Amino acid sequence: MKALEKRITEEGEALSSNVLKVGSFLNQKIDTAFMFEMGQEIARLYQNEPITKIVTIEASGIALALAAAYYMKVPVVFAKKSKTSNVSGEVYQAAIHSFTHDCDYHAVIPQAYISSQDMVLIVDDFLAEGNAVAGLTGMIEQAGASLAGAAIGIEKGFQGGGDALRAQGIRVESLAIIEKMEPNKIVYR
Amino acid sequence: MKALEKRITEEGEALSSNVLKVGSFLNQKIDTAFMFEMGQEIARLYQNEPITKIVTIEASGIALALAAAYYMKVPVVFAKKSKTSNVSGEVYQAAIHSFTHDCDYHAVIPQAYISSQDMVLIVDDFLAEGNAVAGLTGMIEQAGASLAGAAIGIEKGFQGGGDALRAQGIRVESLAIIEKMEPNKIVYR
Repeated sequence: MKALEKRITEEGEALSSNVLKVGSFLNQKIDTAFMFEMGQEIARLYQNEPITKIVTIEASGIALALAAAYYMKVPVVFAKKSKTSNVSGEVYQAAIHSFTHDCDYHAVIPQAYISSQDMVLIVDDFLAEGNAVAGLTGMIEQAGASLAGAAIGIEKGFQGGGDALRAQGIRVESLAIIEKMEPNKIVYR
Repeated sequence: MKALEKRITEEGEALSSNVLKVGSFLNQKIDTAFMFEMGQEIARLYQNEPITKIVTIEASGIALALAAAYYMKVPVVFAKKSKTSNVSGEVYQAAIHSFTHDCDYHAVIPQAYISSQDMVLIVDDFLAEGNAVAGLTGMIEQAGASLAGAAIGIEKGFQGGGDALRAQGIRVESLAIIEKMEPNKIVYR
């Protein structure tokens, strides 16, 4: 998605060789119209799949997931990063290492919210080492649901997560893939 | 909003005298079409205010904020609950006690994302003791921005946060206000 690459080049900041800040339009301040353009593009990419549900993970995946869900007319389920007081009943869990936060957490989805009849699309704003998508894939497998693939806002290709998932046969569509990142220079695949 | 009260009555579960679970449509599994109806109602309630930005807090406030922003055609800024590696520069901070998680955290918004020219609407899915709204209000004051008010999905009126904010002169519009909550019985204001 050329418009996303342009936006990253204009507003993104490489805070180090592998941390990209795009808080000005994507994951802290949200350019609402642009977020819905990204959601519409995800809906277009997966228009031929009979998707019944989008699954994402809190927090910054929720906005892109909802924007895509608006066009695909399906519900969104987001994994919580801990089992809070308002989660009850049996849950699917996955241990996930967060690259951004440099910590491990247990992602939780109540079993009632994914069924074996579902065809699921995973949506997230970023893909780095692929740990979140792998964890969500595991929970979708536990539910006996089908996986249509993953739709990502920005994939940091040089961190290898996307290609590892593709090598497992998972369809991964990223709206922008960064091949190399240096201060003041971002190269796209 | 009668449709929300109906949905809470049908699907909500009072897990205790003050914990309401509405994960089946609002804050873990999201009924996308219904979320946009709620967002549209928020846009209607504040249609006469010259709002330039919606401010919310991660994670479950993001969906309702984005749905309202879609109709109001304004950006969303969400406070993060910790300063992660992809946040840089000067920030506004507020110490907030979470009723749901029973812990304190420091909410963070980069100063670049709210200006003194902004007229801000706070949006959140739940209002209990009002700590999140109070914390966000403090950050908006630090920015020198104007506050149009707060728009809430579900206010637990019996916990007093909404009325305390109203007593301070803040406009608080809640799509549903629960006056009393017992297992199998929810009474609305």
